Amino acid sequence: MQQEKGILALNAFDQSRVSSIDPALGEAVQRRLRSFGKASVLFYQEPIRMARAEGVYMFDVDGRRYLDLYNNVPSVGHSHPRVVEAISRQAGLLSTHTRYLNDVVDGYAERLLATFPRGIDHLVLTCTGSEANDLALRVAKVTTGRMGFIVTETAYHGNSAAVTDVSPSSRPGQPLPPHVRAVPAPEMYRNPVGDPGQRFADSVAAAITDLERSGFGFAALLVDTIFSSDGIHADPAGFLAPTVKLVHERQGLFIADEVQPGFARTGAAMWGFARHGVVPDIVTMGKPMGNGFPMGGVAMRAALLDRFAAEVKYFNTFGGNPVAAAAGLAVLDVIEDEGLMQNAREVSRHLMDGLREIGNRHMTIGDVRGAGLFIGLELVRDRDSKEPAPELASLLINRLRRRGILIGAAGPFGSTLKIRPPLCFGKDHADMFITACDEELREVAAS
Amino acid sequence: MQQEKGILALNAFDQSRVSSIDPALGEAVQRRLRSFGKASVLFYQEPIRMARAEGVYMFDVDGRRYLDLYNNVPSVGHSHPRVVEAISRQAGLLSTHTRYLNDVVDGYAERLLATFPRGIDHLVLTCTGSEANDLALRVAKVTTGRMGFIVTETAYHGNSAAVTDVSPSSRPGQPLPPHVRAVPAPEMYRNPVGDPGQRFADSVAAAITDLERSGFGFAALLVDTIFSSDGIHADPAGFLAPTVKLVHERQGLFIADEVQPGFARTGAAMWGFARHGVVPDIVTMGKPMGNGFPMGGVAMRAALLDRFAAEVKYFNTFGGNPVAAAAGLAVLDVIEDEGLMQNAREVSRHLMDGLREIGNRHMTIGDVRGAGLFIGLELVRDRDSKEPAPELASLLINRLRRRGILIGAAGPFGSTLKIRPPLCFGKDHADMFITACDEELREVAAS
Repeated sequence: MQQEKGILALNAFDQSRVSSIDPALGEAVQRRLRSFGKASVLFYQEPIRMARAEGVYMFDVDGRRYLDLYNNVPSVGHSHPRVVEAISRQAGLLSTHTRYLNDVVDGYAERLLATFPRGIDHLVLTCTGSEANDLALRVAKVTTGRMGFIVTETAYHGNSAAVTDVSPSSRPGQPLPPHVRAVPAPEMYRNPVGDPGQRFADSVAAAITDLERSGFGFAALLVDTIFSSDGIHADPAGFLAPTVKLVHERQGLFIADEVQPGFARTGAAMWGFARHGVVPDIVTMGKPMGNGFPMGGVAMRAALLDRFAAEVKYFNTFGGNPVAAAAGLAVLDVIEDEGLMQNAREVSRHLMDGLREIGNRHMTIGDVRGAGLFIGLELVRDRDSKEPAPELASLLINRLRRRGILIGAAGPFGSTLKIRPPLCFGKDHADMFITACDEELREVAAS
Repeated sequence: MQQEKGILALNAFDQSRVSSIDPALGEAVQRRLRSFGKASVLFYQEPIRMARAEGVYMFDVDGRRYLDLYNNVPSVGHSHPRVVEAISRQAGLLSTHTRYLNDVVDGYAERLLATFPRGIDHLVLTCTGSEANDLALRVAKVTTGRMGFIVTETAYHGNSAAVTDVSPSSRPGQPLPPHVRAVPAPEMYRNPVGDPGQRFADSVAAAITDLERSGFGFAALLVDTIFSSDGIHADPAGFLAPTVKLVHERQGLFIADEVQPGFARTGAAMWGFARHGVVPDIVTMGKPMGNGFPMGGVAMRAALLDRFAAEVKYFNTFGGNPVAAAAGLAVLDVIEDEGLMQNAREVSRHLMDGLREIGNRHMTIGDVRGAGLFIGLELVRDRDSKEPAPELASLLINRLRRRGILIGAAGPFGSTLKIRPPLCFGKDHADMFITACDEELREVAAS
């Protein structure tokens, strides 16, 4: 089973096929390529010219509607009026940096920090999850005086130089940098034997020892707490606990990357790490934080930030601007006022039950797993061998797109459908998706 | 002459003085520190509780007005109605990533690329100038296959781990990383002898040779084209040309950091590098690009980006979202429609003439230099020795703040007042500042 060419290549439009698509669409693609070149990655065999979006729906330039199961950034719903209103009002009032005092920024920081367990009491605001992880790595190095990091084998943590070093999925085919070790994600589907928590702790222990022997030393373990790009692994709840205990025993830090699982997506708590009963030393945030407004953040133990600040001058021009803070406050308000955490929990059960039910008819559905509205649907060639079916994932993604449903894939083989809609996704939307999967898989099987 | 403790420390509120300021203000500062800790840097001996801003003015919570000569991010004016309207409208319509096609994004890319000389024809959109410089370094490494970078001695290029490595002003007291060389900025005030362009080229040549000998090799020269944090050096126009020629002869790349000088600030062109008649290989952008909306970008030769994309998977979730593009388009429109480049040029002359005129009375004004609305006012203890007067800079900054004028300092000694107001700054505003400087310097001299 060969590893896919990295998470970013999954489901990408093949630029060499531009002459074979509809001419008007082809022209729009050519226009994109003229400015953005080969670095431009578009989704689907037929890319979509998107025009507007609202709630769980997106609409293309022809007015065609798409049910969105892909986008976790507009987490409280596309174009949510309360977030838009907050951005508009604050942008017209004041947008500046954090070297002046501003009540909106300080109010937001307090609201956000209140969602964390005791002890995580200081905050740095950034503009992206990448910036947050980049800073977290630096804080871990200064705190521990060591350089080595441990991540999972298909991890993605962002796009800066330092963060790309700890993102194996962005470096397909390349050896890991010398200061980085990758361990298998705590995976229960293909490795059901034994306790995944203990297995993960054993892998991390070996990696720590290896880093110590190599002279880099062990600075931190950095994981996405729902292992998004590793294929979404949430169960059994608590499996991270032995590893976090070990990390602390070995004098390292545990950095929880909440860029994807955070902000109520997992249904049971604001943060993915809560599922495992652990308290991180550093938490990084991004994507859904401003419902699309570019913002990220790093929350951590006060002593870590104070020590870092004593040695390093860090300033982020746009980080913590009042417009971002206003957007962030609106997001927290909407999550609470619209009961989105509870909705994620309830719709999750409905959606997973429905997918498992059609799994009785489709032997290519190997597994349905996840937490809240972050669900992985594992596609296989064969249920016994569990051989991954990335070609079926790709086929299904493009069929669903033609049917008006947006979804992507994840995991080391690109065989896991990644279900992470806006959190206002309802049971009716879940039913639409379940029916669509059922029908498309039936047609694929018949063809 | 000892180097200051890094650019970020200039003009910072001393946290240990919190008990000696007004109690209500002290409480607001304490609130800030509770969430953001010692990493929080506030301006002025008495920090300002800012509430709103419009055009060239900012207003604190008590309604007190401040003339803004500091903020170069709200470049077309604080809370500009056209930018606010563009953000509001687009945020209510669609905010998403670049894996869908979107006319606003493609239209913006074309408008932006049209401002560059022929040959700079591809673009990556990021969220910050730091992300832009981080990516530029990576592109330079992949393009050249080499690792070594050359920057100026007091350079600041951003806050990521990789960019902090090439930002000596963020690393006060620390040795440079082994792959980085720092050269003196092309400075004419304290080094008036000889041709500064040739002098700069000679320093860079020596640094290249040193990098080659060290085994890192020479990847790129990265400079802010108006040398903002080195103290603002713009003259004589053309001084960068011999160095850029040399860089290319030595098979390296020239990266122009336009985060501060770009977007018409220098008065004569959209980009600072134009002043020197050179064409960079890579151009990075940030701060004023969205008038406060978090956005940055990297423009470069097409071949560089295509080669990079073939080797590296890069994706930026918020980069190039339609809201940023709408803000960016509005900024370009306003620069054009309100004639801000011409205004920068005209007000610059008026402002520099006026400051030179009061310089006849104040022997502590050592130099007035710059281009457009990016001007340095050099404060000295003595005109003959040219000994820097950072303590006077600090005193003047805090006196001007009490008078309702916002300004900061730059340069290796913290002795250069950094004048970079919104580009809608008029001659009347310039006169207010000139008069204020004149009166405050007179009072300081008398005290």
